Amino acid sequence: MSMRVTKFAIPEIIFGRGSVQHLAACARSLGAKTVFLVSDKGLEEAGWLYSLRKMIRTAGFACVEFHEVIANPRDFQVHMGAELYRKAGADVIIALGGGSPMDTAKGIGIVVSNGRTITAYEGANRIERPLPPMIFLPTTAGSGSDLSQFCIITDMARKLKISIISRSLIPNISIIDPDFLDTKTTSLIVDSAIDALAHAIESFISRAASPFTETQARLAMHLWRDNIEKAVETRSPVTLENLSLSSAYAGMSFSNAGLGAGHALAHALGGRLDLRHGMMHSILLPAIMRFNRMACMSKVREVLEILFPDGHFKTEEDILRGIERLEQRFSALGVPVRLRSVLPEKNVLPSVCEAAVHDACMVTNPRSATVEDLLRICEEVW
Amino acid sequence: MSMRVTKFAIPEIIFGRGSVQHLAACARSLGAKTVFLVSDKGLEEAGWLYSLRKMIRTAGFACVEFHEVIANPRDFQVHMGAELYRKAGADVIIALGGGSPMDTAKGIGIVVSNGRTITAYEGANRIERPLPPMIFLPTTAGSGSDLSQFCIITDMARKLKISIISRSLIPNISIIDPDFLDTKTTSLIVDSAIDALAHAIESFISRAASPFTETQARLAMHLWRDNIEKAVETRSPVTLENLSLSSAYAGMSFSNAGLGAGHALAHALGGRLDLRHGMMHSILLPAIMRFNRMACMSKVREVLEILFPDGHFKTEEDILRGIERLEQRFSALGVPVRLRSVLPEKNVLPSVCEAAVHDACMVTNPRSATVEDLLRICEEVW
Repeated sequence: MSMRVTKFAIPEIIFGRGSVQHLAACARSLGAKTVFLVSDKGLEEAGWLYSLRKMIRTAGFACVEFHEVIANPRDFQVHMGAELYRKAGADVIIALGGGSPMDTAKGIGIVVSNGRTITAYEGANRIERPLPPMIFLPTTAGSGSDLSQFCIITDMARKLKISIISRSLIPNISIIDPDFLDTKTTSLIVDSAIDALAHAIESFISRAASPFTETQARLAMHLWRDNIEKAVETRSPVTLENLSLSSAYAGMSFSNAGLGAGHALAHALGGRLDLRHGMMHSILLPAIMRFNRMACMSKVREVLEILFPDGHFKTEEDILRGIERLEQRFSALGVPVRLRSVLPEKNVLPSVCEAAVHDACMVTNPRSATVEDLLRICEEVW
Repeated sequence: MSMRVTKFAIPEIIFGRGSVQHLAACARSLGAKTVFLVSDKGLEEAGWLYSLRKMIRTAGFACVEFHEVIANPRDFQVHMGAELYRKAGADVIIALGGGSPMDTAKGIGIVVSNGRTITAYEGANRIERPLPPMIFLPTTAGSGSDLSQFCIITDMARKLKISIISRSLIPNISIIDPDFLDTKTTSLIVDSAIDALAHAIESFISRAASPFTETQARLAMHLWRDNIEKAVETRSPVTLENLSLSSAYAGMSFSNAGLGAGHALAHALGGRLDLRHGMMHSILLPAIMRFNRMACMSKVREVLEILFPDGHFKTEEDILRGIERLEQRFSALGVPVRLRSVLPEKNVLPSVCEAAVHDACMVTNPRSATVEDLLRICEEVW
């Protein structure tokens, strides 16, 4: 069986404790004069923001800052940022934070270089002109936005998260410094790690997976398996670093192979109900694996063999038991595994599933799904 | 043990049979108006050159061609190319061929954007200004130049191959189309595959290896192991494709982790005696592994465990036997394993080793080596 043509692109990566020190040199290599620094207002970021600002100014660049970023970033925030960017005449975008500041930064980059409102670029390959140079510093190990071609923004008029997907959305440089994780709560670390695992698994079974992306997905799963419980227990530097690495590999994989029904549902739930993205995958992922299993049995088997090397997953029954085991593993990590623990009532589900079925992530899900299929998945994990 | 800061960069990759069809779209995305097409005069390239020229012209670009490329490309050829590039007012460089046309293209890119003669940029990180956009189409599966930060040019005055190493030497896009391999001789395919294996192994044991590069190196070795004999025997599309993939992974690894004494010696031999680069690694690699083994025993063990999954490599004796087994495997592939079969006489060896010890690749060799050490290696495989 010969391979189809496949594309694989990632940013330049600088990885390791202390890599943040390379920021000024990176900005210089991209021709920075006035840096546009995007971050959220998170208390834990305050110290880092101070350091970054100092590095940027010491290097002789002007620095304009934009911190109007919240979880599930909104279209109007992107437009506010773009306005500020233009007024300041900035030339390089730096984002510090989790998925929200990074996606906001991408949105600002799209608007300042392509001119229309952000919602005009919904979907795949709609961006015509290249974005300003971007350097991203992820402070959580999960979103993968620093490596990916994805930008997720909430369209407030439609109360919908839109996916914008384009090669141009990969930043020039991703500086991944696991030092950032040291100050994060264990609960945020676990949520982010499960988001990363969902990236790895959904992209591994994706219709658009290639040998390049499958490799990265496998690595992400191996590192997750060997480090998640230890990280929670000890928070040792090595385990946190390995979760960073796991998230980076998962990011390389999903950026190039796409995602599936789990992320489509998470986007719809996030857009409709403003739920935190990271907390939904422990609920959805097992059900998504169950739903997809007949379309990609050998891949689901491989996922389980990686996650539970002591298990045997020959028959379909074994596989269903393996998926249950994953659910139990999530429970043991203290994260929700039922929708009812994060949703007030069931009556939003039809409109959520209606939105999810049109999400760009559905295109690469290994099995086609109707609104009813998605509803059944939500019922199953209610 | 916590990881040092590590950098990882690769071009955008388009991989697969038929991927050459994406050339014009790639050139357009890089803003091409006048394309500068570098290739060698190889007969087997003739048909492809014709197709490429047609694609470029049909897409509405002007096309200037430069084919003054031979194995072990010379400094003066780079300068001739740069002169032609400037006269033509070209704006995007496309290279088609093996390592020689690609390295020539990089050399031309350096000279037209940085201004001085090519030898002025010898060493690491000496290039200040970015090169013109470049798209490379490798037609052999070995050199990895389409993925790498390396450019190797022969300095004719010193009869020396110089290594130029810089982030800027990674092309924007690498289009890897295994269709190119179908017309190559089996002997060239084997030589190139062994060059790729040397890239994988030398970078795996390199001082600058990181989790990112080790992963790629392991994949390259696995694919080599499973496909080299089958490719020679059957030349089936899948095995050739897998050798392409093996070479690509090896390229990602060595570009970011560097190489070692084997490539230092191969450069020195190539510079002094104009030997084909690809034919030297079957001779040098086993001896280089023997020499380095005490500095990186567990990694050499892992290499052997990958290459010979049925073997046991516990003791040092086992490891030495494993290296012998690799030598026998090379012999069985019909390639030389003794220096005397490619060199007329021994008396050039001292000056070759003198040159090799100063090669940029020595910096990352896991064990320090003197001229005498290198001489002993050459004697051992004489």
